[in-house]
Order: sequence, then C-alpha cells, then structure tokens
Amino acid sequence: MENIFADRMFSVKRSFIREILKVTEDPSIISFAGGLPNPKSFPVEAVAEAASKVLRESGESALQYSTTEGYLPLREYIARRYARQGLKVDAGEILITNGSQQGLDLIGKVLLNKGDIVAVERPTYLAAIQSFGMYEPEFRDVPLQNDGIDVDALSKVLSGSRVKMFYSVPSFQNPTGITYSDEKRKQVAEVFKTHDTVFIEDNPYGDIRFMGKDLPPMKHYLENDTITMGTFSKTVSPGMRLGWLYASGDIMEKLTIAKQAADLHTSYFVQRVVHQYLIDNDVEQHIKMIRGMYKKQRNAMVSALERYFPESVHFTRPEGGMFLWVTLPEGISSLDLFNMAIEQKVAFVPGQAFFVDGSGTNTMRLNYSNSNEAQIEEGIKRLGDAVKKLMSVKSTQVIRAAK
Amino acid sequence: MENIFADRMFSVKRSFIREILKVTEDPSIISFAGGLPNPKSFPVEAVAEAASKVLRESGESALQYSTTEGYLPLREYIARRYARQGLKVDAGEILITNGSQQGLDLIGKVLLNKGDIVAVERPTYLAAIQSFGMYEPEFRDVPLQNDGIDVDALSKVLSGSRVKMFYSVPSFQNPTGITYSDEKRKQVAEVFKTHDTVFIEDNPYGDIRFMGKDLPPMKHYLENDTITMGTFSKTVSPGMRLGWLYASGDIMEKLTIAKQAADLHTSYFVQRVVHQYLIDNDVEQHIKMIRGMYKKQRNAMVSALERYFPESVHFTRPEGGMFLWVTLPEGISSLDLFNMAIEQKVAFVPGQAFFVDGSGTNTMRLNYSNSNEAQIEEGIKRLGDAVKKLMSVKSTQVIRAAK
Repeated sequence: MENIFADRMFSVKRSFIREILKVTEDPSIISFAGGLPNPKSFPVEAVAEAASKVLRESGESALQYSTTEGYLPLREYIARRYARQGLKVDAGEILITNGSQQGLDLIGKVLLNKGDIVAVERPTYLAAIQSFGMYEPEFRDVPLQNDGIDVDALSKVLSGSRVKMFYSVPSFQNPTGITYSDEKRKQVAEVFKTHDTVFIEDNPYGDIRFMGKDLPPMKHYLENDTITMGTFSKTVSPGMRLGWLYASGDIMEKLTIAKQAADLHTSYFVQRVVHQYLIDNDVEQHIKMIRGMYKKQRNAMVSALERYFPESVHFTRPEGGMFLWVTLPEGISSLDLFNMAIEQKVAFVPGQAFFVDGSGTNTMRLNYSNSNEAQIEEGIKRLGDAVKKLMSVKSTQVIRAAK
Repeated sequence: MENIFADRMFSVKRSFIREILKVTEDPSIISFAGGLPNPKSFPVEAVAEAASKVLRESGESALQYSTTEGYLPLREYIARRYARQGLKVDAGEILITNGSQQGLDLIGKVLLNKGDIVAVERPTYLAAIQSFGMYEPEFRDVPLQNDGIDVDALSKVLSGSRVKMFYSVPSFQNPTGITYSDEKRKQVAEVFKTHDTVFIEDNPYGDIRFMGKDLPPMKHYLENDTITMGTFSKTVSPGMRLGWLYASGDIMEKLTIAKQAADLHTSYFVQRVVHQYLIDNDVEQHIKMIRGMYKKQRNAMVSALERYFPESVHFTRPEGGMFLWVTLPEGISSLDLFNMAIEQKVAFVPGQAFFVDGSGTNTMRLNYSNSNEAQIEEGIKRLGDAVKKLMSVKSTQVIRAAK
C-alpha cells in the first residue's frame, strides 16, 4: 500500500518522556523522571463513597450519554471556585475535558492552520509541543527568566509575523517550576493588549502553592481572548482524566464543536463521581494536605541539591508545583548524565525534550512529588556523585584537548 | 481581533441532531430522535460493586496516570472476545479510546490530509461526517442496498481518484439498521484487495443482534489495512465513554501517538471499573437480556409502522441495533413532518443530516431502543396520522398545481 498517513504524523514522534519512563519501570530505580502526583495524596475512600452514592442515587442517569459541555453542577462548582480568586465566571464558560491535555488538542484544532505561528516558553511543556504539533504550526520560543517570561523578547516575537497564540504555564511551570510574578503578569497583559494573539494559560499546578503569596490566574489580568485550562489531576486524581477549558463567546462555541467531534463528551460517570466527591468533602483541607506533603519533598530535594551538587550547577527553587529545573555547566550533557545515573538506579528527564529546537542539552527536570524524603536524599546523593564524575571526565577531556 | 480560527472550523457545524435533541428535552415528548440505549439495561448495581472492589483493592493505582494504550487486562479481554468470533487478535492490536467516537477522530488525524477523499455509505453516521470533516477531506458517498453497500458503485468510486479510506458500519447501521450479508462482505473484501484504501469498520451494534445469523466483523474477511472500532456503550454503558480501536503495525503505532497527544490516555478509573465488571459478571447473559429487550421494542415499532403508516412509505426491518429507517414518498419532506410531529409531541431525526450532500429530504431515522412498547405504539400512531395529513396536503397541492 502507498503511504496512507497524513503529513502531520511525520512531524510528531512518540514522547521522549514516555520512552524514558519505560526504562524507569524497574521498581528498584529512584525516579525523578515522571510527572506523577503522589498516590498517597489520593482520596481513595472518599472517592469510593462518592461512586457508591452516585450509583445508588442516580445510577441510570450517571451511566447514560450526556451533554458535550459537561455536567452543569460540576461546571458551576468550577465557576464558583474561580470566583474565590476574584474572577467572575459563568458556568457556560466552562467546558469539561479529559484532563487538560485534551484542552491542548482542542485548542490546536480550533485555532491552528498549518504554518501558523505558536509562541511558547523556553523551555516548555513537551506534551504541548506534541499536541499543537499535530496541527503543523511553526514554533517560536521566548526565554523564561526567574520571575516569568522575558517580556522584551516576547514583545519582539509578537511584533513579527502574526503569532496565533502564546502557550504559557504561568504558575510552577512544567518543566522549570518558575512562576510569573504579579508585576510580570501585569506587563504581559499590557503586551497582549496590542496584539492579535490568543493567550493560552495552562494552569494545572496553581492550587499547589506551598510557599509565597497566591496569585490569580492570567485570565484575571487579561480578560479577552484568553483560554485558561484547569484540571483535577493534581488535586483529586489524574487517573480520572478530568479537566476543563475556561473561555468565552465564539471561542467557547468552537471548542464545544471540536469537543463533540472528538468524543461526544467526557465520561459522565467520572464527572458525577468527582463532583460528588467535591461537594461531600472538605476539598480545601485536602489540597492543604497535598501542599504540605509536596513542600516537605521539595525542601528535601533543594537541601540535598545544595549539599550534593557542585556549585557550578544551578537549579530553580519553586514555590509550588511538582518540578524543579537543573542547569549543568555548559558542555555537560544531561543525556550522558542520564546514562550514568541509570546505572546508579536514579532517573530524571534530560531537558532537551522541553526545547522546540532540540537545544538545552545541559539541562534536566527533576520531579519531587512522587518520591519520599529518604528516596530524595539518596537519589540526589547518587545523582550528585554522577554529576561530579561527569564534570571531572569532561574537564580532563578539555585539558587533554588543550594540550 | 482578526479571525483567529482555523479554516477547518468553518466547514463543521454543531450537530443537527444535537439541536434537535434540545427540542426534545421536554419529557412529555415521545422521542424516537436520540440514539440512547435503554437505561433500564444498565448494570447499575454490578458497576457499583466493581467500583467499590477496584477502589478497595487497588485504589491508589486505579487513580494514578496510566499508559496511553490502555489497561492491559482490559485489552486482553477484548482480544479474547474477538477470538470467539474467529479472529486472532493480540492485545497489542487494541487501543482503548473514549468511546468509538474518539476512534473516528484519531483515524481522521492519522490518515487524512486536507482534500483527501473519504468514501462513506449513503446515508452514513453523521458524527463520522463531523469528526472526519475536521480534517477537511472530500466526501464521496456510495448507496446502501438492503443487504449492504452497492458493490458496483463502490468499485467505481474506488477506481477513480485515490480514496484514502472507506467508512462503513456493516452491522445494523446507524441510521438505516441495514447489515451487510455474508455474501456482500466477501464481495467487498474482494474489491478492497485491489485498492489502496483503508477499510474503517465501525461496529458499535454488532453484539446487539436479536434476529438472524451472527456474522463476524469485516476484519475477518479483509485482514490487512482494516481498522475496526468497538465500544462498551451499547453493552455496558455509554456514560462511561469506553471504546477501542483494533488495528495493526504502523497504523496502530500512529494511532497511539495521536491518542497520546489527544488526552494521554482514557480514564484509568473507568477502564478498571468496567474491566472489573466484565470479569465478575455473566456479560453474555446481560447482552442476551439487552437483545431481548430491543427485539420487543423493534417488533413493536415494525408492527405499528405496518398498521399506522400508508403503504407508500417504506422502512427497513433491522435484525439488530437501535434504529430503523423510513423513506417517505418523493417530495414529502421529513423536516415538514418533524415540525408537525413536534406539535403532536413526537420526535425523530430527519434523514437529511445523514447525507453528505444534504439530500435525503424524504427520509427519517427512528430509534426504538429508548422507548417502551406503549410509547412506541402511541408515538408511531401519532406519527402515522401526521404522515397521512402531510401527504394529503401535498397531494392537494399537486392537484391544485395541475389545475
């Protein structure tokens, strides 16, 4: 048979992370590679009670087809939660999705023609590259600074050929853990007011702030033509695959059409069970518990990095979320480090995967949400040894080359 | 803001059916419009037990992220079930999706470039037109006969410009209820052996045969380059949104990449609960119960149509599935009939929505799975009165026009 595949399939590869995760399935490996929430945080019993109640009280309806937009009381719950952050949201502006990952796909489908320009952070969430990549856009990347996007560089990119959308994770970014400051959010909003570019705000970690001051979503700073994504993956459970898109007007209308064509609607059973869980439990208390758990794990990792890593290695100190970002000295390859580390039974994600141009070879992402403090201490120690060994090999090579 | 939407969004409209279903939300309406399974067939208690067991025995794992391909024991279960139909299927050839609707989207994404030709049955399932439409193909339709597709017409279409894929619902088709005979399946397989066209087999109703002899899926007749879709929507519950794609080799590899970009994976909680339900219960007995229920409802509708509709109206007599198809005399509009019927509190779907060229104005789809025998008797009686009234108005007009 002749080639049968669409062109788009040749620009997209299997996720690099996914391949790495296969290597790390060995349970004896200490893995900082995945992006998994800590399963000890899952409200298993409360979900069991919610499932039982939903099926007992409205089983036939909970198992039937439902509307594309999603279960109205769940959308109202989400709208009310935004209200507490100072946002005035109507339930009609919420579309329920299969995790926020589906939000990325629907946004790509609704906005992107082949060749359209998509601006992203540098580095950026690699599954976003993958999702948008299906619609064959051109990517432009804008550097991240410690307090958020480089506004001058962003301004320059937006002033060139028309940028259809800018994809951003403003709070506790994946992969860097970086958060846009209040000041930065205001500056970014100013920039967007003069450009025809949709701001795509991916906010999976916003609730998981364990230090510093809470900030409202970008939607608060930039009302029009912003699409915000949210998820229950980090506060309830990722296995449910339950997230949402928050958008208005024509954009919401088109997203709903795309959702309908994609899978009619998100599992109604899941929507009903999660909604029942949310209204029957003290969710704020539960989220507080997760924050406390991740804060300890983050502190353990920062402390171990300070003790075991050479000073020439830099890393971020996130105030929330699940990841931190390590920059090795120039010329030190995190892929080489990965191979050495696996021998020592430690895993992480080499940073290259998060750059649209394949650069970032000296960077790496570390996840702390899915390891306990003892594992973090031991894993970072081993990783530190590997880094030192790699750097000394490298400097010997440099000295040899100079001779 | 300038136009921000992708071109594809201008060729796709909100589902016509969805708009009609809004009209029929009034509970006093007898609705033959939807495509809903009978909720009385849902195994509510058994699902509640399965959910409770899964969460009790492996709650943390069931709520965590999982693999894109789907829960292996569920894929093995599906493979075993195909084996009983004489198909040798490996679990690696099964990809779990959010209902078979997501299968349509993933197939479109993986196979279709803009302008590629997609052949469909005439009439065809309208949500397939919608899903594939997102990838901007050109449609060609091939007439259905009482025993399946018109093979000569199909052959002619495939011999023209290259057809990328042919989309078919070979068993108890939506909207017509028509099933390809064994002979027809063999003829179709012969035709495909000489063409570079992927056969897309959508088989949501295959298990719901209540008359006649079981036939294996098209995949049995035509092994290579066939993609088969299946679902638990009609045998367990549609609200779960749980289906699958059955394909091999490169096609499966690309479908998996597309699934990962679309939403990482299907709700793992749902997969675990449905799998637990399937292995803990006598599913064949359950399906037998559904068959018995729908057979009664189908018989009630056929009998009422024979009694209340004029002889010049033709309709199919399906041996399974959820729909039958009515053809009014030429020149009688089912949209006019719809408006009259709604006044009499009866609803159906005008057939036009199932034609890619907007023809079929004298056809209509009737669903019998979601109404009881009394509702069917009463609804078809009212509909028959409306048909007679419409035909007499029409013949008066014709006589007037002839004068």
